[in-house]
Order: sequence, then structure tokens, then C-alpha cells
Amino acid sequence: MVNREIKVSNNQKKDLSIFFDPKSIAIIGSLRDPWSGGRALSNNLYDWGYQGKVYFVNPSYKEVDGVEIYPTIKSIPKTVDLAIVITPASTVPDIVRDCAEVGIKNVIIMSDGFAERDEGGENLQKEIINITKRTGIQIIGPNTAGIANGVTGLVISQYPLGSKIKRGCMAFASQTGVISATGFPYGDLGYGVSKICDFGNKCEVDESDLLEYLADDPETKVIAMEIEGIRDGRRFFDTAKRVTREKPILIFKPGRTKESSNTLMSHTGSLAGDQNVYKCAFKQAGIIQVNSFRELLEIAKAFSYQPLPKGNRLGIITITGAGGIIAIDTAVECGLALAKLSMRTNEKLFKIHPTLTGNPSDIGQMAGMGIPPYKEVIEAILNDENVDCLLCTIWSFLPAELYIQALNEAIIPKNKPIIFWVYGGSLENTNQICFELENNRYPVYSDIEIAIKTFGAMYQYMKIRTRFK
Amino acid sequence: MVNREIKVSNNQKKDLSIFFDPKSIAIIGSLRDPWSGGRALSNNLYDWGYQGKVYFVNPSYKEVDGVEIYPTIKSIPKTVDLAIVITPASTVPDIVRDCAEVGIKNVIIMSDGFAERDEGGENLQKEIINITKRTGIQIIGPNTAGIANGVTGLVISQYPLGSKIKRGCMAFASQTGVISATGFPYGDLGYGVSKICDFGNKCEVDESDLLEYLADDPETKVIAMEIEGIRDGRRFFDTAKRVTREKPILIFKPGRTKESSNTLMSHTGSLAGDQNVYKCAFKQAGIIQVNSFRELLEIAKAFSYQPLPKGNRLGIITITGAGGIIAIDTAVECGLALAKLSMRTNEKLFKIHPTLTGNPSDIGQMAGMGIPPYKEVIEAILNDENVDCLLCTIWSFLPAELYIQALNEAIIPKNKPIIFWVYGGSLENTNQICFELENNRYPVYSDIEIAIKTFGAMYQYMKIRTRFK
Repeated sequence: MVNREIKVSNNQKKDLSIFFDPKSIAIIGSLRDPWSGGRALSNNLYDWGYQGKVYFVNPSYKEVDGVEIYPTIKSIPKTVDLAIVITPASTVPDIVRDCAEVGIKNVIIMSDGFAERDEGGENLQKEIINITKRTGIQIIGPNTAGIANGVTGLVISQYPLGSKIKRGCMAFASQTGVISATGFPYGDLGYGVSKICDFGNKCEVDESDLLEYLADDPETKVIAMEIEGIRDGRRFFDTAKRVTREKPILIFKPGRTKESSNTLMSHTGSLAGDQNVYKCAFKQAGIIQVNSFRELLEIAKAFSYQPLPKGNRLGIITITGAGGIIAIDTAVECGLALAKLSMRTNEKLFKIHPTLTGNPSDIGQMAGMGIPPYKEVIEAILNDENVDCLLCTIWSFLPAELYIQALNEAIIPKNKPIIFWVYGGSLENTNQICFELENNRYPVYSDIEIAIKTFGAMYQYMKIRTRFK
Repeated sequence: MVNREIKVSNNQKKDLSIFFDPKSIAIIGSLRDPWSGGRALSNNLYDWGYQGKVYFVNPSYKEVDGVEIYPTIKSIPKTVDLAIVITPASTVPDIVRDCAEVGIKNVIIMSDGFAERDEGGENLQKEIINITKRTGIQIIGPNTAGIANGVTGLVISQYPLGSKIKRGCMAFASQTGVISATGFPYGDLGYGVSKICDFGNKCEVDESDLLEYLADDPETKVIAMEIEGIRDGRRFFDTAKRVTREKPILIFKPGRTKESSNTLMSHTGSLAGDQNVYKCAFKQAGIIQVNSFRELLEIAKAFSYQPLPKGNRLGIITITGAGGIIAIDTAVECGLALAKLSMRTNEKLFKIHPTLTGNPSDIGQMAGMGIPPYKEVIEAILNDENVDCLLCTIWSFLPAELYIQALNEAIIPKNKPIIFWVYGGSLENTNQICFELENNRYPVYSDIEIAIKTFGAMYQYMKIRTRFK
């Protein structure tokens, strides 16, 4: 097994802002066929709200559907902020040279067939790296699934989206397309996103560059990254150490096994590295390591919607006995403790209904008798000085408004986080509840274990922050 | 902490068939208020296809909406197969006595407030146990969320369903309502169910009885149970040992921590027991232990739709490099191996497109260029003698028919399982694809790690079966 990673020195801080907010874009690729990459790219730009100018480049035709096609980048009469290249790999170095020549400083190469493919591809990638070194041109990719900006609606992707990405403060990044703009139903689920970036082969812009950019990005409050290999460990972890004082970083690191490391090498040319070394380095840098792809996608939202808990004492409102037990198991395993409610709180709960006393407080019996007293129960538990955070279980057959109203009316401290687990027989209602509660900044999970692990991650980050204070 | 479990001798095999297929039902409970338990119960019976006779019992009124209400069970003029009791706990022993007197042999007690509540409730439960001993009456509950029969459409539950439960061969059971008929969108997701049963406090029918019943139930092919405590360990594990020769049993056992065990004691009066003892006993009995609530709900379906793999060699069709890496990590961790494709298979894949060779086979680039060659790729990989099972990644933006057609047209061995991971930007499309593929007996997962763990469980069960052959 040959190490196919291509080393480059990469220590200067880059300005990635034009990638995420270009005033003008040139698309170089195939445009005629509705399935073609260039066509799909331009559809996404137009469909999701890009307001800037788009130029199309292809030497094979002069016009498609009444739109002028330029034969080369050099023939575009105006200045261009960003070039997006989606042409066969062998043509890419010349295109990048043309970009440099006309003063385009930022290029996204979506084409594949580079270092991840074979020696020929590796040579092409080296050729591009040499151009960047000589010209200072900035490149995302090659072999990237694109980027997105939730603030402006910019979506650079060759695959269709289900719905418009929502503006928010979560930044997602991945190395090989698994978290692209089209990889997850952000819009349908109420996920508010600031930036999405897929690094691809990282011939120039890498994870450290993005981290530095996101650290300064006022729209981003939490950073979630899928990372297969890290190009410059020292730089990355030094940067992360600074960033985690202000913003939480969640990382999912696949490549835990020998088998996956071998495969990984062949698809982005990255080295997976030793898992234990990574684990220690993540910990030292204050990075929260998550253990599955779903956790990476799901845990970030709670950081973006809710305050950090001041401690680890968890209150639980459950509907079924088993729900409570499952929640406690996971809570204890991720460093949380079951809050001991004060006498006064238990008295309050008893007055509402005798079955509600204790933690978990079981609202199940009352859920079958009209409108359950969520407002009063949430109020009683969250105001208890022995409670730092609250998991509230909700039935999908009751309308989302009921919960939103309860939360709006309840007099509760603003500095204690609340997370929902939704549960029940209707998928449509479940999705509706997720959507509406998240639009009101209440994170909802359909998986109870992930809901609890989210509190675990928030508590962990609270301790990391405290360490630096 | 007092052990509130109530011991009973319980060694005779019971006939639970009338619980799941009663020709006539009496509902004893409140009926007037639309939120009342009795009303909700009868709505579920009528809405989801119960064809038998329903009698209503309540001494407070003679008629509701033109339907006759009987003052007592004794005043019902015809024989009744099953009584469902949802009245205050203190009234239940007398009602059970009445049932015994008129010859009703099967009673479901949905009321709570028994051994899980306090000493008074414990005494009521003991009183009921004494009646069962004296009369031989069979009881599910008290404190049960009900049962369901996917074959007949019978739903005994006091909470609304989203849609009709689908007929299928998965049996689900839980101890405290977490897997009731209304606890999961079975119908919306294409889950085919044979029986659902929530044990509650297990004053009479327990997990061993249900296991014996499901072992003989021709509609049930896989059994998934959430179990908090086991009443008679020897009987349960002896039964399980026999059952697992024919049908897989998946168990999720909460109560792993001291904190959750304490709570557990208070809500069904069960002892959680030592986790390591359980773990060994599960293993010896050939039971597959799963590690989360979601895994319990999701893994069973693959057993019901697909054949068992003959070995552990996994083929992977991926769309993104990262998807492949994540799949391999989880696969290796749960005892699977990455299949080494034969030269011949790689030649076939190369002919379709050079980027498809190897395992994982990456169809991502082709997914952006019209209709990707799923038929040919699935055919090439599944026909390789080095491959035992196949994970196929699909995009949610391509229609479900494309995959169904590919699978229908592909000439592939019938004895190798195939599982899908669906991925992409539209929640609606994702749900639609899950629904349609599962209606065609192809299990679909929106969580890649659970998809792979499912193969791990199937491989584990194949070895368990082989042990007994």
C-alpha cells in the first residue's frame, strides 16, 4: 500500500469568504443533458436563491436554451469571483491555469479521477497543486460534493435538493460527500445551517482552513465535522484548541478499523491514522468526538438552539416506564446523573396528579385524559434547583402547538436546556412536530438514546469551556 | 428498597390465542368523554377492522350515542371471549371476580395503580392473583398498554394510531408500553406485524407465556422483546433455547445501571438483575441481544423480509467514499468481513464503468448521470461466490420504482440477503422509498450503522441455527 497523500505546505490563513459568498460564478462543464453536472449545478443555484451572475463555459456549443455559453474562461467579458469545474479530470489543470490567468482566485473542482483513482490522477492533482503554489489560487476539491451557505441560499451541488436549506448557525463539513447540501434533509427537518463544506481530496483548502474560517464566521455557532484524515495535525489541533473556547466542535472520525483504513486510502488518498492518537488529541483540543454518523448530524442542533447545562443533573418527563429506564441507562453511561427532585417540587407534582411525583415524572396516564399538564410539570421540574436540564417525552398524536404553548406560557429559567423525545404511531405527525418545535428552537429527537447523548455532549462541552475560563 | 415483585407459580403452558383473536369483547370503563379510556379503546377496535361483537359495561349510564351500556358484566346476555378493564384500580378485583363467575377466561387489565404504585396497589394485585389461581382466569396486565394482531387488525389500545398496522411476521413485545400498537409508526413505515403485546405488571401472563405462544404462532417468524425483568428465568431461557432453533429472538434489556434498576423496581415491581448474568444467559439460549431501543425496532424487519446470509462476507454498493468507510467500520466491529470480489466480478464492474470496481463499489459518480446501473452492479456483486450479503446505498432523489425494477430484473441468487441504506436531501422521498421498498420485502434503513448491525445480527443468528443442526 503506497501512501498516496500529497504533502503540501499549508500554513497561511486563507480567506474562504468568497467561496461562500461569490458575487459571480463561472460553471465549466457539460450543460445540454438535463442530467449533466453543469446543468444540475446551475439548477441548484437558480432554484435556491443565488442572486449573483452565472456564466457558463463549454467549447462544444454557443448557446443552450437561449443562454450564452462561453468557449473558455478567458472569453468571459467580466470578472468572476468563483469558478466551478466539473469536467473530465485530464482537462482540469488547463482550466485552473486559465482561471489563474484571468485573475479568478477561487476554484471548486467537483470532478473526480484524481489522487483517489490512480497514478495518472495523482499526477494531475500534483499538477494542480503546483499551479496553486505558483499563483496563490485557492481550491476546494477535487472530488468534492460541493458547498452551501444557509444564510444566502447558495447551494453548489450537482445533485437535487429536497427543499431550501434553512438559515441557522450549524456548520457541517465532511471529506467525501456524505454531508453535502443534498446529503441530508436539513430543510425538511428544521435544521438551521450556516455553512456546509465537503473537502474532497483537499488538494489546497483543508480542514484546518475551514476551521479557521468558521471560527471567525459570525453566523456559525457550532461546528460538526466528518473527518477521515487530517493533513496537518499540529495546525488543526492548535486551531481547534482556540476555537473550542468559543464554539463547540463535534467530530465523527471513521476509519477505526484496518479494513476501512485501507479503503479510505484509496478514495481520498488520506491516512486514517491511529484511533487512540486521534482520541487523545481530540480530547486535549476540547473536541467532542461522537460515535456515529447520525449522532454527528443530530447532536449539533441542540447546541445551536439551547443554552448549555450548568451541571449534569437530568430531569425526565416520560410517558412510559420503559422510556424512563432507557433514558436513565444512557444518561448514566454518558456522565449524567438522575436529578433528585426537592420535596417542594414533588409536592407541586403531587398536587397536579399523584402519579407525577419523582424523577422520571410519568405523564403517561394523564396523556390519555385530555390535554396533559405539560406546562405545570415542565415548570415544576425546571425550576427545581437540583435540576440542570430536562428531557421531555411527547406523543406524536398530540399537536405540536400544545407543546409550544406550554413552553411559551411556562415560567422557567432561560439558562436550562430542554430537549424533546417524540414518540408515537404516526410518522406524519412525528415529522410535523419535529419541524414545528425546531422552528421554535426546541431540539426534537425520534431516538431517545441520541436525545440523552446530546445532553451528555452539552455537559461535556460545558466542562471544556469552564476549563478555559 | 423492598422487592415488590410478587412471586407466583406459573409453569403451565397457557393458551393465549383468544387474547389475540376474540370473537366477542366486553369493555369495562368510562365511555362518555371522548378522551376516556373505554371510548378510545372502542374507537381503535372499530377503526382498524375488528369484526367481532363489542359490549360496553358501565353502571353509571344506560346508553351512549345510541349504544346500549350494560351495568355489569353479568348482565351481558351472550358469552364473551375477552374482557378489557380500564377502571380505577380499587374496582378491578370485583370486576375480575365477575368475569370468572360468568365464565370469561381472558382479561386484559389496562388500569394502573397496582404493584407499581404503592402498598395498597400491591395488595390489589395480590387479590387479583389469588382469583386467577382459584379460577384459572388468564390476565394480561395490569398496567398494560395493550396488544394488537396484525393479521386481523385487532388493536387494543387506549391511544390513537396513525394508520392501520400492516400484516406481517414480526412480533413485538414490551413490558411497559414502549412498544405498544400506538408506540411506533408500523403502518406508515411498512413494518409488517404479526402480534404486539405489552406485558405490564405481569400478574399472570408473562414473557415466558408469550414466548411459548409466539413459538407456535404460524404468523410469527421473528420475535423482538423489550424486557425489564424476567419472572421465571429457567422457564424463559429453556423456552428461548427451543424457540431460537426455529425463530430468531431479539432482546433489548434496559436496566443496565444501578440508577435505572432502582426506578425500574418502582414502575413494574420487577428486579432488573445482573446485566452480565443476563448477557451470558441470552447468549446460551441463542438470543440476540441488541443495544438500543431503535435497534430492537429496526433489526427485526430484515429477518422477516430476507434470507439469512450463509457467511459474513459483505458486499457494499456506496454513493460516497465516506459511506463505504462508515459501513466497513461497523461491519468489522460486528463480526462481518469485507468481501474480496473475484477477478471476474471486477471485470464485469469495470465494463459497466471503471469507477465501479472493488468493494465498496462506488456508484456515486454514475448516480449523477441519468439512471445509474443498479441492476448490473447488484447482479455482478451478488453473483460473486465470495459475497454472502449486500448493502446497497440509494439516493432519496431517485424514485423507489427504479430500485424495485432493478431488483426484479436482476438475475441474482435468492439465498443472499440485500439491505438498503437510503440517503439524501428529501424527507418525503426518503419515507416514500422506505415504504415502497419494504412493501416489496426489501428492508431499508435511514441509519447506515443500524443497516450494518442488522447484517451482524443475521450472521450471528445463522451461526446459532447452525449450532443446533
